[in-house]
Amino acid sequence: MSLLTVGSVAFDAIETPFGKTDKIIGGAATYISLAASFFEKNQRIVAVVGDDFPQAMIDTLSSRGVDLAGLQIKQGEKSFFWSGKYHNDMNTRDTLITELNVLEHFDPIIPAEYQRTEYLMLGNLSPQVQKLVVERLTERPKLIAMDTMNFWMDIALEDLKQTLSMIDLLIINDEEARQLSGESSLVKASKVIRAMGPKYLIIKKGEHGALLFHEEQIFAAPALPLEEVFDPTGAGDTFAGGFMGYIASTNDISFENMKRAIIAGSALASFCVEKFGTEKLTNISQSDMENRIQQFVSLANFEMTYQAD
Amino acid sequence: MSLLTVGSVAFDAIETPFGKTDKIIGGAATYISLAASFFEKNQRIVAVVGDDFPQAMIDTLSSRGVDLAGLQIKQGEKSFFWSGKYHNDMNTRDTLITELNVLEHFDPIIPAEYQRTEYLMLGNLSPQVQKLVVERLTERPKLIAMDTMNFWMDIALEDLKQTLSMIDLLIINDEEARQLSGESSLVKASKVIRAMGPKYLIIKKGEHGALLFHEEQIFAAPALPLEEVFDPTGAGDTFAGGFMGYIASTNDISFENMKRAIIAGSALASFCVEKFGTEKLTNISQSDMENRIQQFVSLANFEMTYQAD
Repeated sequence: MSLLTVGSVAFDAIETPFGKTDKIIGGAATYISLAASFFEKNQRIVAVVGDDFPQAMIDTLSSRGVDLAGLQIKQGEKSFFWSGKYHNDMNTRDTLITELNVLEHFDPIIPAEYQRTEYLMLGNLSPQVQKLVVERLTERPKLIAMDTMNFWMDIALEDLKQTLSMIDLLIINDEEARQLSGESSLVKASKVIRAMGPKYLIIKKGEHGALLFHEEQIFAAPALPLEEVFDPTGAGDTFAGGFMGYIASTNDISFENMKRAIIAGSALASFCVEKFGTEKLTNISQSDMENRIQQFVSLANFEMTYQAD
Repeated sequence: MSLLTVGSVAFDAIETPFGKTDKIIGGAATYISLAASFFEKNQRIVAVVGDDFPQAMIDTLSSRGVDLAGLQIKQGEKSFFWSGKYHNDMNTRDTLITELNVLEHFDPIIPAEYQRTEYLMLGNLSPQVQKLVVERLTERPKLIAMDTMNFWMDIALEDLKQTLSMIDLLIINDEEARQLSGESSLVKASKVIRAMGPKYLIIKKGEHGALLFHEEQIFAAPALPLEEVFDPTGAGDTFAGGFMGYIASTNDISFENMKRAIIAGSALASFCVEKFGTEKLTNISQSDMENRIQQFVSLANFEMTYQAD
């Protein structure tokens, strides 16, 4: 099947307790497409960069099956740039610099050949832009997933609610779920959020894994316990990309298959945090990924046979 | 097989955001024995109470297969009493009152008929008392598990380390694991702690489930996502009791069986928090428990079949 990703393709500069980077490649759509490419070879992207964006990364995406007709390259403009510093616990970070640049007036133009897209992943962007994309697709995808963040809840909650009413699956973290719902119990939060539109909700809990909610069903996936998280940047997008790549490649949106997709996303996210930025993701093989998925099988699965004595 | 539990049998008074209790039955050994009784019908207890302890609870334990020859009843003395108040997030609590009473000079006398005990659970007590129990058993149990808490790390770390060197399995929470090891990564913490003696380590993470570590293997069990935690008191002991009851009744200490035992303990702990104290545990049936275990199977298990397109 085909997967269309809309989101930022950008530069990041990252500082963690383990070191710091200069400007490196980042952006939600970059991580999503790279992660999805381990499963889905028919990908499209709608994004915008300036003329400062390196051709090498564009070639990397292209070589991994990502069609780039939807990548706008704005001459004389600069790509989106974010810089942040993680605290010692790696769970919180300060944003040091946000330069919107080309993202400020991003008009998500959908190339005609993208119209028949079965799966759509809306990376974290303004909810108005996310909504525009859904409206511009003449045929509704089989599954529309989206990410968002607390920033949009603070400044554009009504727009966000409108966009939420149009999608199928929201993928956010626990803190965002609590803010969006006003509930501290994630079970209660999941009901409030699903009442806003999405029939499916994934709540990411970082080192504690992820929860999938749909009707009365819940699936709890662990994260791989790691000695060290080197750089969490992009882990959430990598998770979403692995998830949607798996769903698109299997073309199956059953709850059982979404469980497998969460494990696929979790496996890729566990690689992402081992190095700065996209470094690890671009250096692992298909079999590294498959071995990591097997680690999740041993980590989480058990066979329950109960016999009292 | 047989399971011997050593620990407090006591009174608690609990205040949570949902209400407060007068003096109710509590104590680590109480929760452990009640939980274990869902699996193991051959149980023993070594504990001490005052003459204020209600016969009704003693009868309840007895009717569930707990031999009480090792329960010392001190005439003219009072049972251990703890009172605490949970904060709004239910993850932290303040101790309001601790009256050691009979626990102050507790001498854990092992009745002769308890000498051949295959499984031993050392509930949270002073590490010296825990050590005495191990030394007084002439035949070493097949598996010795223990709980402890930060209090003993603060005031009796050397004693605690001695006791740890004599046991097989330590069951503590994430905060305690971090304090005991001095490591914030739980994977690193598990290595430091296992180097102190126990070949197996379970780290309880509350609403995020539990991790089991042994050699290079890790198992991650989820907790049941709940709308509301009414009273967390005794959940950790209930988990340990369910775990050890399952292990004793199946008489199998393989890693695969420990996974199942963790699910059994998690299922019982998920009941415990639904009411104050032991109320829920004493009111559920064997089939309630089995249904809850099935909920964990759907919650955590997935079947991984990976086919790229």
